[in-house]
Amino acid sequence: MIALSEVRALQQKKYRDRDGLFLVQGPKLVGELLRSSFSVIAVFGTSEAIDALGDAKVPLQVLAAHQVEKLGTQKSGNVLVAVVEQPNTTPVRALGADELIFALNGVADPGNMGTLLRIADWFGVNRILCSLECVEVFNPKCVQASMGSLFRVPVETCVLEERIPHLQRGGAVLYRADMDGTPVHRTSLQRPAILVLGSESHGISAAINALPGITIAVPRAGKAESLNVAMAASALGMEFLRQHQAG
Amino acid sequence: MIALSEVRALQQKKYRDRDGLFLVQGPKLVGELLRSSFSVIAVFGTSEAIDALGDAKVPLQVLAAHQVEKLGTQKSGNVLVAVVEQPNTTPVRALGADELIFALNGVADPGNMGTLLRIADWFGVNRILCSLECVEVFNPKCVQASMGSLFRVPVETCVLEERIPHLQRGGAVLYRADMDGTPVHRTSLQRPAILVLGSESHGISAAINALPGITIAVPRAGKAESLNVAMAASALGMEFLRQHQAG
Repeated sequence: MIALSEVRALQQKKYRDRDGLFLVQGPKLVGELLRSSFSVIAVFGTSEAIDALGDAKVPLQVLAAHQVEKLGTQKSGNVLVAVVEQPNTTPVRALGADELIFALNGVADPGNMGTLLRIADWFGVNRILCSLECVEVFNPKCVQASMGSLFRVPVETCVLEERIPHLQRGGAVLYRADMDGTPVHRTSLQRPAILVLGSESHGISAAINALPGITIAVPRAGKAESLNVAMAASALGMEFLRQHQAG
Repeated sequence: MIALSEVRALQQKKYRDRDGLFLVQGPKLVGELLRSSFSVIAVFGTSEAIDALGDAKVPLQVLAAHQVEKLGTQKSGNVLVAVVEQPNTTPVRALGADELIFALNGVADPGNMGTLLRIADWFGVNRILCSLECVEVFNPKCVQASMGSLFRVPVETCVLEERIPHLQRGGAVLYRADMDGTPVHRTSLQRPAILVLGSESHGISAAINALPGITIAVPRAGKAESLNVAMAASALGMEFLRQHQAG
């Protein structure tokens, strides 16, 4: 069984990178994890929480409540912590004819990253490309914010300026989300498509802006200066799906 | 000048309610505040931050950096804290022919509440009704998450089950956001409209579900179990604006 000190170390990126492992916390999310295809090394929890898992086919270990709390990153009250293998990089998969891909260009906040995974999973986006500057998806805040979508949507970390042109040669149309773009509902959205969403503070990189593509915006009727990247993704995901179902 | 102990007390709801005041923090937001119609009692800050405000027509007080930090709720690095009067309840205003109103039914998380104000402000929603169970909009986390939209979108706290029927008699159509509703893009959205968004954990109350209205959903093509209330508001706000601009 993995030592408790090694589990605690996984709160830090340095050790997640070194060991290729990450943490999943709380009964709801650990329940989803055990129904997923992810490889679980061990689950630690209070006796009630472990009992409630039923006959999970992974190593389980009962601990005192205060011990479980120390293993994880949540402030208090956490009763289950699972140690999980980071999945191998997704093998390169052929581009689907109807596919919509999110490409995240420097999304730095783990809460936003988790929310973006959840939005992708809602709207049927079945792969996410992350630039090298993005926060790692195995950050505990991202894992928790994804509400299990991390177990369903494959994420590929890559050099976007190289990966996107490759997908374009395969037929994908590039869309860039930017406030100065054409209102999305006045654009006839094609598929397969790549939707690039930029960083919270720096937007989309010059290299990606230089690629052939279409810049689209969430229409605005009020006075807010900006929308957060996750809110923009939700609005644009809505319109991509609407046009797809109408077409 | 208000005493520093009284400013610090405004970190707590009890004293915000008692004094009818609240805090606005950070250079960007305080800058927006000073350009708004809100009444500012005083601004406290480091000498650099106060200098950068220029000739603000409100009482300014320079403090040491560690004193400013203590006044506010942010962990560290905050250089400006303003004390602001809570605006009077918005006087009842006639229903606009094209108006879209958000009605929030028990939204409890201050970050969600602030994000909802920002989404409303983006999509041109020019009033928000909050049920009595909602978190107060003057909570510091809500103020900061609203990114200044709190200064622009009037918020009315009221008994929704009474206020909504009144607006319906004036011609507003009631829409309820719920996962089991009709996909929003298959609904012909009318205006004036009220869009009810439910609480994160309990959804929409039975009393509001009993009112005549139409239940709408954000269409889904993937496997996520739910969308957070702010993501749903962004997707629905997108479709309300699209249909309005198309109509």
